Formats: sequence, structure tokens, C-alpha cells
Amino acid sequence: MVRGVVGGGHGANGIVTEVSSPAADSTFRTAVARQLDTFVADQRLLLTDLDPAVGDLVDAAVDFTVGGKLFRPTFCHAGWLLAGGTPADPRIAAAGAAFEWLQGSALAHDDLMDGSDTRRGRPSVHRDFEARHAAAGGFGDAEQYGARVAILLGDLMLAWADEHFRRADPDARTASLWDACKSEVVSGQFLDVLSQTRDTLDVASAMHVIRFKSAKYTIERPLHVGAALAGGDETLLSRLTDVALPLGEAFQLRDDVLGVFGDPADTGKPAGDDLREGKRTVLVARTAQVCGHDRVLSLLGRAEGVDELHDLIESSGALAAVEVDIDRLVTQAEQAIAVLGDEAASLLDPLVDAATRRVR
Amino acid sequence: MVRGVVGGGHGANGIVTEVSSPAADSTFRTAVARQLDTFVADQRLLLTDLDPAVGDLVDAAVDFTVGGKLFRPTFCHAGWLLAGGTPADPRIAAAGAAFEWLQGSALAHDDLMDGSDTRRGRPSVHRDFEARHAAAGGFGDAEQYGARVAILLGDLMLAWADEHFRRADPDARTASLWDACKSEVVSGQFLDVLSQTRDTLDVASAMHVIRFKSAKYTIERPLHVGAALAGGDETLLSRLTDVALPLGEAFQLRDDVLGVFGDPADTGKPAGDDLREGKRTVLVARTAQVCGHDRVLSLLGRAEGVDELHDLIESSGALAAVEVDIDRLVTQAEQAIAVLGDEAASLLDPLVDAATRRVR
Repeated sequence: MVRGVVGGGHGANGIVTEVSSPAADSTFRTAVARQLDTFVADQRLLLTDLDPAVGDLVDAAVDFTVGGKLFRPTFCHAGWLLAGGTPADPRIAAAGAAFEWLQGSALAHDDLMDGSDTRRGRPSVHRDFEARHAAAGGFGDAEQYGARVAILLGDLMLAWADEHFRRADPDARTASLWDACKSEVVSGQFLDVLSQTRDTLDVASAMHVIRFKSAKYTIERPLHVGAALAGGDETLLSRLTDVALPLGEAFQLRDDVLGVFGDPADTGKPAGDDLREGKRTVLVARTAQVCGHDRVLSLLGRAEGVDELHDLIESSGALAAVEVDIDRLVTQAEQAIAVLGDEAASLLDPLVDAATRRVR
Repeated sequence: MVRGVVGGGHGANGIVTEVSSPAADSTFRTAVARQLDTFVADQRLLLTDLDPAVGDLVDAAVDFTVGGKLFRPTFCHAGWLLAGGTPADPRIAAAGAAFEWLQGSALAHDDLMDGSDTRRGRPSVHRDFEARHAAAGGFGDAEQYGARVAILLGDLMLAWADEHFRRADPDARTASLWDACKSEVVSGQFLDVLSQTRDTLDVASAMHVIRFKSAKYTIERPLHVGAALAGGDETLLSRLTDVALPLGEAFQLRDDVLGVFGDPADTGKPAGDDLREGKRTVLVARTAQVCGHDRVLSLLGRAEGVDELHDLIESSGALAAVEVDIDRLVTQAEQAIAVLGDEAASLLDPLVDAATRRVR
């Protein structure tokens, strides 16, 4: 079996591990990397012809995207293969590459919205450009400059996502799945932002948010787009949904656990960053069920509250409860994969493992 | 002749005036409005099905976009008609509507980047949601909430722009012009942001920025997309560029003048807002040529500097010089229109007038 590498996606749980799924093989990964390279070369020509200074923006998009773990492209490829597509075909590689730009855009904007300082062990876009401004002794406010560039870079990568998706030559049905993915992820993020304006923490609402923000966006829609691009029928798409939603939820719960208890070498972020940034994860909502909303909210989003909250999550039994949730969701995903048959199992089981396993 | 209404675009110079161009007639305007309505109805169904709360985001997109002056759609229609397209065809109405979402996205993000409080006489998106948060006594920081929603709403409208553009059923050539438009406008905005990190003001660099940020984005690419959608050849596109660049530059210079000297009832913004926000317009760069960079930069971007800077722009002769620039550019655009012939003149001359005329 060809072996490849897939992980939790850019800035997600940061797992990098060998995955023995044909969907993650090196031929496909190389095809996606080539797509990204060629696309960027075209954009660089177009945009530096306007002004060489725009090269900095192109470089930042590349630094932020190329060399990622290709999580969404891999699921897109899996959907394609399950619908009978030829492995690593240029069309599926183009669709996969489009998901990389979409994810780059989402992360540049997410990090700004969350005030995150780091991403994959490096400064986030807004902090990177803020530092460049300061180092160059730029006129005006360095932080505002960083924020502006992060907004623009996210916009550019979102525009690129659609432009690159066109290279997959999608029919109307495939394009409408892609379009739904983009609207859904923004809607999920809005629900997340909205939930943070409430003075309560709620497990059901946190689960609801991750369904749209993570499960549909990261797993279901990439599978759908890949399958539809290869002409997969509605029955296949519906069965892929049965796999994707529990798997995507388990993936996000694992990501949440790693965001608190993970090794920074794996997550690319300082330990406890999610708590410092005030993310309202299921993990935190479960802790509030036991320890009270007021106590958890008084610690969440404050650097000096991180250690106590970290301990509470464990001692309250919230961590153990979330591990039970993950196990239950993984079992549900595996049962749905079994319905799809042996080929699906060889493609998807290794991805389930990579997306949800404990690290260390 | 059918009469319509066209203006300086959302939040641009705010001219609303009757324009006797067939490109701006009420049949086309109605067709675009219907496109926007139908599209929003589809999105509302999809997204409120995820969660009714997302309806607020859809409403905000509508409030921010529908009822606009359809500046870019009108140029898109003009290009289409010049290439022999049928008036107000659904395909050109869809392409026009796509430009409205693109512009809505750009403005939501621009206002946040510039810290603008108002847009078309109403609060900007980030201020609107900041106020809602405060009124509801929301948990957390109201300003951060407003900024987050503005980022997400801009992303949603950018995603919608592409989705709506698909409804125009573009061929590969037309799509590549649309794609170029999106990358160019972000690049122009980046050059603008970058120029603000320098401690000098430069007329040539300000003119360079408005070519990409305004002239190509607002006039050239809408004309190109419309013309290409109707099968117009490269000669036509190149002649449209000859019209569009001087016209777009004149349009932006007029917008800059109105940003300082315009009536708030026309501009939808308090007088002097551009100066308060520190915009580096050609008008301000010309003032610096006469009065010195240090003096102008010490006043620009500060509320207490607005009155003095306003007077300097006039007394230095910068205002008169920019009026000369506008006249020169308008003449150049009119000569390029004459090359295109009588039909072009009947379509475009009224638009030149609407985009660049003095108000009051």
C-alpha cells in the first residue's frame, strides 16, 4: 500500500503521522503541491506586474499554505476515489488545492478574530506583519497594519480558492456543494462568535457550532465535492455524510483536547492557548456543567486563569467525558464506513485514526 | 431614451442622479434587484436551516447591499451592450449582482480597516454590531464582537460574489477577467495600506494605488466582464480599457474631493471623515508637495487636525490642481469613447458625467 502523510489540517490538532490510506498517498500529495505551485506562479506574474511590492502578499500566502498537511484535500480525494475517480487526477488535485486556499483564508481571519499570536509554531499573519512594520520603523500603528494585512491576505486567499476551484472544471452540482461549504463555514464561525456574547456555556450549543464550523467544513463537504466531481450519486453523498458528521465532531473534540493538553511541538501553539484566547469548546462547557458557569467564565480568556482552568478540566471529569464522546463518535463513524464497504474502509479507516487519535 | 439612476457606488462619492444612459435604465436595475432578492432568499433558506440566528448575518448583508446605486453593474451592462448583448438579459443581471456582493464585501472590510464609523449615512458594519452587543449587554468586548462580525460578513459576501457570478454562466475567458478583478482590488488595497506605512506622501504613488484599487476594479473590469460575457473581442476590451482607466482615476479623484468638501447628505459620511481616518489621497499628497510632508502628516488622521488640513488643501492650490487633473482625465476618457463610436457615446457619456461631476 502506498503510504502518505496526513494530519489535523493547518493549525488544527497538528497530528503529523504516516497514514496508510490510498487517499493520502504521495502521488496525490505531489499533484496538489504542483497545483499550488503553478497557481501561485501565475498569480505572482499577474500581481507583481501591477507592482513588485505585491510580491510580499503572494509570499505570505505561500508561507501560510504550502507545505500544509492537506487534510481537506485528502478527504476530497477519498470522496473522489469512492465515486470511481482515477487516483490523483488533475481535476481532484485542483479541487483539493482550492480547499487549501479556503483553509488559509479562514485561518488568517480566525487568528485575527481570536487574537492568536501563533499558528503552526510561527507568528500568525497579523503578528508577522505587525513585527515587520515595527522592525522597519514604519509610519503609523504596527498592530493596525498587521490586522489590515491579515484581512487582505484572507480575502486574497478566499478569492484564490474560487479561482483555483474553477480549474477542477466542476459541473453545477459540484459547484453548489462547494458554494454551500463556503457559506456554511462562515455561518458556523458566526454562531461561534455569537455564542461568546452569552454569559453561559452550553454543551449542546458548542456541539452545534462544531458541526458547521468543523464537521461539515473539514470532512463532509470535502468528501462531497470529491465524490460529486467524479459523478457520485446522492446515495453515496448521503452515506458520506453519515461518516463525516460524527468523524468531524470527534476530530474537533480531539483538537480541543490537544489545545489544552497537547504538546506544543505537535500543536504548533503554546499549551493552553485556547483557554487564554477564551475559546468556548465543548471541553470548557462540560467543565462549567460541573464547576459552574461563573467560575469557568471568570478564568476563561485570561492568561492568569489558564493553569487553574487546565486543572479544573481534568479534575471535574470533563476531559474524561469528552474522551468518551470521542470514542462514541468514532464508533459511529466506523459503523457508517462499514456500510460503505471494504474499499471505503481501506480509504477512510486510516483517516479516522489520524484525525482523532490521542497524541503521546 | 429610457432614464435610470446611477451614482458613485456604495459609499463612494454618493452622487445619486438621473442618468440618461440605456446601461442604467430601470429594466436593468430591476433585473439586478430581482437577482439579489432571489439569491438572498436562497441563501436565507440554506443558512437559517442551519440555525435561525444566522438570519441576522443574512439581514446585515441585505441591509448593506440591496438598494445600492449599482455603479459597477451599470458599467458591466454597458460593456455587455457594446458587445451586442440583449438589454437586461438575466446573465448580465447576474454578473452585475455579483459585483454588488464583491463591493459589499470590500466595503465591510475597508470600513473595519480604516476604522470608519459610517457608511451611507448609517453605522458601518462593525459599529452596527458593536452597538447591538452593547445594547443587549452582551458578554465580552463589544468592539471586538463588531470587528469579528464585519470580517465574517465580508467573507460571506465575497463567497456570495463568486456563487452569484456562476449564475451568469461565464465561459473561461470571462471568468478569468472576473478572477483578475478580485485579485487586483486586494492588491490595490494592499498597496494603499503599505503606502500608509511611509513617512512621505507621494502623488505618483497615490495615483498608482487608485489605478488598481479604483479604476480597474470599479470601471475597467466591470466593462470587461460584461463585454466578454457577450462575446466581445480583444479589440473592444482594449478600447474599453482606454476609457476606463482615465475615467476611473477621475472618479476616484472626485470621490476624494467630495470626501473633504462634499455635503454629508451626498456622501453619507461626516465632512472630513477621510482626513480624520488618515486616507492618503492624491489631494493630500498634492497638499504635501506645497506645504511639506511633515506638516500634512502631523494633521492627517487626527480629529483635531481636520479643519486646518481642510483649509490647507484649498489654500495650497491642491484642490484646484486636482480639479485640473479631473478635467484632463475626463477629456481623455471622452476621446477614448469617441473612438468607440456613437453607441458607446450614448451609453458611456452620461456615466462619465455622473461619475465625475461636481456636486453643488
